Amino acid sequence: MHTTDADESLLIRGIGSLIAVPRGPLCGAAMSALPTIRDAAIVIENGRLAWFGPQRDLPAGAAALPSLDARGGCVIPGLIDCHTHIPFAGDRVEEFVRRVAGESYLSIMQAGGGIRVTMRAVRAANEAQLVDQALPRLRRMLAGGVTTVECKSGYGLSAEDELKQLRAIRALAERVPQRLVPTYMGAHAVPPEFEGRADAFVEHIAADDLLNTIARERLARFCDVFCDRGAFDVAQARRVLERGLHHGLIPKLHADELAQIGASALAGELRAASADHLEHLDEAGMEAMRRGGVTAVVLPGTSFFLGIPHADARKMIRSGLAVALATDCNPGSCMIESLAFILHIACCQLRMLPSEALAACTANAAAALRMQDEIGAIERGMAADLVALDCGRLEEWFYTPGRERVRVVVCGGRVVHQAE
Amino acid sequence: MHTTDADESLLIRGIGSLIAVPRGPLCGAAMSALPTIRDAAIVIENGRLAWFGPQRDLPAGAAALPSLDARGGCVIPGLIDCHTHIPFAGDRVEEFVRRVAGESYLSIMQAGGGIRVTMRAVRAANEAQLVDQALPRLRRMLAGGVTTVECKSGYGLSAEDELKQLRAIRALAERVPQRLVPTYMGAHAVPPEFEGRADAFVEHIAADDLLNTIARERLARFCDVFCDRGAFDVAQARRVLERGLHHGLIPKLHADELAQIGASALAGELRAASADHLEHLDEAGMEAMRRGGVTAVVLPGTSFFLGIPHADARKMIRSGLAVALATDCNPGSCMIESLAFILHIACCQLRMLPSEALAACTANAAAALRMQDEIGAIERGMAADLVALDCGRLEEWFYTPGRERVRVVVCGGRVVHQAE
Repeated sequence: MHTTDADESLLIRGIGSLIAVPRGPLCGAAMSALPTIRDAAIVIENGRLAWFGPQRDLPAGAAALPSLDARGGCVIPGLIDCHTHIPFAGDRVEEFVRRVAGESYLSIMQAGGGIRVTMRAVRAANEAQLVDQALPRLRRMLAGGVTTVECKSGYGLSAEDELKQLRAIRALAERVPQRLVPTYMGAHAVPPEFEGRADAFVEHIAADDLLNTIARERLARFCDVFCDRGAFDVAQARRVLERGLHHGLIPKLHADELAQIGASALAGELRAASADHLEHLDEAGMEAMRRGGVTAVVLPGTSFFLGIPHADARKMIRSGLAVALATDCNPGSCMIESLAFILHIACCQLRMLPSEALAACTANAAAALRMQDEIGAIERGMAADLVALDCGRLEEWFYTPGRERVRVVVCGGRVVHQAE
Repeated sequence: MHTTDADESLLIRGIGSLIAVPRGPLCGAAMSALPTIRDAAIVIENGRLAWFGPQRDLPAGAAALPSLDARGGCVIPGLIDCHTHIPFAGDRVEEFVRRVAGESYLSIMQAGGGIRVTMRAVRAANEAQLVDQALPRLRRMLAGGVTTVECKSGYGLSAEDELKQLRAIRALAERVPQRLVPTYMGAHAVPPEFEGRADAFVEHIAADDLLNTIARERLARFCDVFCDRGAFDVAQARRVLERGLHHGLIPKLHADELAQIGASALAGELRAASADHLEHLDEAGMEAMRRGGVTAVVLPGTSFFLGIPHADARKMIRSGLAVALATDCNPGSCMIESLAFILHIACCQLRMLPSEALAACTANAAAALRMQDEIGAIERGMAADLVALDCGRLEEWFYTPGRERVRVVVCGGRVVHQAE
C-alpha cells in the first residue's frame, strides 16, 4: 500500500483559492463552513502538509523547493471514494438495458440475475485477471482526482473466492499511486449453493478461520453487510459484523437502500464507521446513527443509475449527521467510476452546496474510512493528497457538469497525474 | 460553414458494430429499431457515405483507400446538438449556487437576474470576444463526438447586439470543424430598456430591416422564441415567428418549460421545426405537434441542472412523436456542454433506451434542424459525419456514465479528432 513516508517535498504556488477543508467528521452546518484562502501556497515535506497560507506569507526557504504552479486554479484535498465494489469481473450491460426498459433491480436480483452474475464472473477469474480489469478503472479515477479508494470483496461469496478478491485489492495497491482501503463483504448476497440457507451461509462467511486469515494477512480493515429486503436481515447482519469485530474488522453497512428493515439503527448500535445508501432512512435510524457517530454515506449515482428516488441528504445534514458521498462503482447498480459525476448529481439533484459536496468526498469520506486524521483535510501534518482544478473557484467546478476540470493530482506529496 | 464537397475519401474498417441509423424523423417505436451491422466497414467518397456493410462484402478497390481502423469499436453517426445558446459571455456561477440553496429560476429571473445578466456580458463583449469564449467549448464538444451544433443569438436583445452574436456564429463556423446551424432568438427575454413594453420590444426585434439583414446575410436559418410564463406569450410569439417566416426563417419554440400556456400548440399550428423543453407538455400540445410534424426536443440537462422534474419523453415516444435530445448549453439554466452527459440522464432518468437516445441525438436532432437529408443517419449519400467509440456495443456507452468513450470523430469524411 502507498505510504506517505517518502522524502517528497514540494512547493505548490499560484493557487487561486485553497479550500482548507478541516478534519472530519464535519457534521451538519459544519459541512458548508469551509475556510477559503485566496492566492495561496502549500509547502509539502516528507509527503505531508508542512505549511499552507497566503502566498505572500510563504516561509523563508520554501521558495527553493521543487515547485508546481497551480496557475490560478482552485486546490482541494485529494478526493476519497469511500464506497466502491472494485475489483470485479465482466459487465451487466444486458441487465442495465432491461432495467431501463422497466424491470426493477429487485426483480432482476430475485430472478437469479444481479449480484450472482458478477459472482460467476469473479469466481471464473483469477487474481491477476481481477487486477487487470481494475487497473484502468483506478487509473481513470486517479485522473479524476481520486487519491483514496475503498475497495470491497463480496462477489466471491465463498471463502476461497473472497480471499482471492481481497488479495487482488492488495496486489492493486502495489500498482497504483492511490491509497486503497480494503473491506471484506462476504455477506453481499447468498450464493446459489446456499439457496434458502442464508443462516448457514452467514456461518460460512463469518467462520473463524476465514476471518482469522483476513485479519492475520491484513486483507481488510472493514467488514460490510448488505442488510436489506432481499439480502440479509438484521439478525444475520449483526452476526456477521459482531464476528468481524471480534477479529478487528470495523463494521460498515449497506443500509436502507431498497427498504427500511432496521439496518441504519443496527449501524448506530454497533457504532459502525458508516451506513451507506440510506434512500429509506427513517427518523429512528437517523437518531441511532447520530448517537453512534456513524457517517452517512450517500450514493446518488446508484439512485441515478437505477432511476429511483435519491436519499434525502439535505434532511441528514439538517439533522446534524456527517454526510459523505461516493460512487458505489459496481457492474450492477452503478457503473459510474467518476466521483465528479456523483458530485454533480449531489449538487443539482440532492441540492448539496458545492462546499457540502466537497466536504462529503474529503473530510467526511475520510471519516467513513476512519482515516480522518490522515487524509481528507488541509491541515498541518496531514498526508499531502491534493487536487488542482483548472478553475479559480470551487463553485465553477460544480457549475459545469460533465466537464473535466482536474489539472494536477498529488498523492503523498508526489505529482501522480497531470492533464495534458 | 463547413462543406462536405471536399475530396475526402476514407475506408473505415474494423467496426465492431455499426449502428445504421435511418434518416429522420424517427417517430415513436421507430426510434428503437436501429439496424446493427456486426464486423462492418464504411467507404467514404468526397466526404459522403458511398458504401457501408459487412466488412467481408467490401467492394473491390476500397481496400486501396486511406484507411482508419475502428479497432472493434461501435460506430455511430456524428452527434448533433440541436439546441444550444452558444455563443455567450461570462458565467452565472453565483446564481447557480443560489438556486442549489433553494431559490427558483423564475424568482431569480423576475428579480432581474437570469438572462439579463448574460445580456449585459454579451453586450459588453465584441464579436471577437464572443468567438474566443465559444471556441474551447466547441472544441470540447467535438472531442465528445458532436459534429453539428445549433447556435442561437438571444443574449444581445437589441438589433445591433443580436447581429453581433449571429456574426460571431458565422465567424466560429469558419474556425471549427463542426457544422454550426444559426438560429435568431431576439425574443429570448425583454431587455430592461423595454421593461413593461414587451409588445414594443416584439416589434423592435421583428422589424423588417433587422430580419432583412439576417436573411440577406444568411445569418440564421431559424427563428426561435421563448414562449412561456414570465417570457413571451402566445400572441407575441406568433407575431415574431410569422415575421420570421415572412423572411424565410423557419420557426422553433422554447415551449412548455416553466408552465403550460399553449406554446406547443402554437408550434404545431405553425409547423415549427421543433418545440423544445416540454416539461409541461399536455395532450393538446402533443396532438398539435404530431399533426404539425414538429420534432420534440427534450433537454434533460436543464431539468437536471435546475433540479426540477424531467419532461416525459416516454409518453412522447409512445404518442408517436419524434423525440430529439440536446444540451441546451447556456450559462443560466444548463452549463452542460457534454451531450454524452445528457444521453446518460435520458437513459437512466427518462428511461429512454440506448437506441432511442442515439436516434434522438442523430436522426431526430437532424430533423429538428431540417437537415435529415444531409446528416444524422448512416445512409448512402449522407455526409460522412461519424463517431467511433472505444466499446464494441452501443449499450456499453450508455452503461458507463461519466466515462469518455469517444475514440475518433470524422466530419465530412475528415478525421477531426482522435483520443490519445
